[in-house]
Amino acid sequence: MSEVLIVGSLALDDVTTPFGHRAEAWGGAGLYAATAASLFAPVHLVGVIGEDFPAAALETLASRGVNLEGVERVSGGKSFHWTGEYTYAMDTATTRETQLNVFADFNPQVPAAAREAEFVFLANITPALQLQVLDQMTAPRLVLCDTMNYWIESAREDLLRVLARVDGAALNDAEVRMLTGTPNLCRAANEILELGPKFLLLKKGEYGASLVTREGQFSLPCYPLPNVFDPTGAGDSFAGGFIGFLTWLGTTDEPSLRQAVAIGTVTASACVEAFSWDALLQLTDQRLYGRYEELREMVRLEPCPVGSG
Amino acid sequence: MSEVLIVGSLALDDVTTPFGHRAEAWGGAGLYAATAASLFAPVHLVGVIGEDFPAAALETLASRGVNLEGVERVSGGKSFHWTGEYTYAMDTATTRETQLNVFADFNPQVPAAAREAEFVFLANITPALQLQVLDQMTAPRLVLCDTMNYWIESAREDLLRVLARVDGAALNDAEVRMLTGTPNLCRAANEILELGPKFLLLKKGEYGASLVTREGQFSLPCYPLPNVFDPTGAGDSFAGGFIGFLTWLGTTDEPSLRQAVAIGTVTASACVEAFSWDALLQLTDQRLYGRYEELREMVRLEPCPVGSG
Repeated sequence: MSEVLIVGSLALDDVTTPFGHRAEAWGGAGLYAATAASLFAPVHLVGVIGEDFPAAALETLASRGVNLEGVERVSGGKSFHWTGEYTYAMDTATTRETQLNVFADFNPQVPAAAREAEFVFLANITPALQLQVLDQMTAPRLVLCDTMNYWIESAREDLLRVLARVDGAALNDAEVRMLTGTPNLCRAANEILELGPKFLLLKKGEYGASLVTREGQFSLPCYPLPNVFDPTGAGDSFAGGFIGFLTWLGTTDEPSLRQAVAIGTVTASACVEAFSWDALLQLTDQRLYGRYEELREMVRLEPCPVGSG
Repeated sequence: MSEVLIVGSLALDDVTTPFGHRAEAWGGAGLYAATAASLFAPVHLVGVIGEDFPAAALETLASRGVNLEGVERVSGGKSFHWTGEYTYAMDTATTRETQLNVFADFNPQVPAAAREAEFVFLANITPALQLQVLDQMTAPRLVLCDTMNYWIESAREDLLRVLARVDGAALNDAEVRMLTGTPNLCRAANEILELGPKFLLLKKGEYGASLVTREGQFSLPCYPLPNVFDPTGAGDSFAGGFIGFLTWLGTTDEPSLRQAVAIGTVTASACVEAFSWDALLQLTDQRLYGRYEELREMVRLEPCPVGSG
């Protein structure tokens, strides 16, 4: 059975939403993505934590089939810590503080057992480290990367090297526009493909996600939720569900990528229903496949009754 | 054959986009909606113009089957005039000036022949006037209304009366949130339905449109265009295409509404490809149905390969 490698942060977040506050919430891109991917396939997680990272979180990950051999624990160190808040619209996080802590000296080492992983998700870390991880992999079949505005500005050359080596990039529309300097999203998305990736996962928050390939575009709305509690980790839960599902499926053709976008949309919907990973952990197969079919119904369109003429 | 009544402005717009400027561009919600609807069905247009409104524009409308008996020409008056501009992102228009002119004293009179129209689109005008139009109609089968933030704030009671009497409302997400006071879009959309309409057309600009009914939601992305030239009139071209198509189709069940959303998405895509209605006038049946099928392909999703369990 195929396995997936995920590289990214494990964090302790202070999150404030209109509906409450949680201090030291277990989070980080690596944690969210690994949790979502673990619904479908064995996961190798590579990251770094301080002494303060709770054993219970690691035990939960391990119980879901996440191999933690690649998670380095720094003696005397403090874990990555993000403080942020959301207003009622829930569309943008305002960062109050970012403490890199042990993440500042992160030097990802991929354990021998994980180097054979066929599927890889490089969550949002320094592009130089994403390259370092890729150099350690034997022969991945599909690599997906994330990034952020900070790296687009400060590490553009390294980021371009990453994009030249990955199969897919998961970016939001602001990142796509910033990276290309092209305001028109349709053109900007295609310019990303010219940088290397075979596909772009365009993350549009409450407006859903699109898959852009050289052949065309696939778009899904987000799964409509009457209660969005905490959007933290939605994008990583999306990417983790996407790649975990592909790992299980074992195919990477365009119809498979479409299905994986729908799966990622559902895992992201579960993520935002509670603080931290609480609701994501409760996502059952039944609800997962139920929401998938609801999404499919939400985009069902009959042929045009007139015909071309 | 069914006919459609459209009430709305005919305007002369000064529009500036990153790609150019046009003074005295023929526009207005009524003009855009009537033009889009005229692709499918006979249209009765009710509006008001000044002496400055060009005869050529009226002749073009008439040549497309738009009955102009309800368009009042005010001697010595000046037409509604909007001045606005767009930045590169093309997502928001900045209004520089609005001159109501003859529109300030608009008193819509529906000609006898138009009162029997089975389909009605009340474009964005004072809610009191929308009610006045409804009072003149014999027995419309389906009424769709638009509105704007200004009326939500200044004419809320009248607007609620309109919503209690229409079948559908075409609103953007900011309007839906403002009208309900509910930040969560999923809940806000359902609260709109409690005000009366059987369906909500949720306009999301470059993120497409959704149809929300009590039974569920249908979502389509916008048709991807590498060159968006001038977004003015996109929402009205969407609504006009939507209701014109339904008028032609003669059915108003949910699958028909979905098809009409796709048609509206295509007519809106044609609208934004050039200044004013230039590209909308050039939209051929072949391109229309071709884009419809492209949209259908863009949302095609296979069943989940796992099944519930």
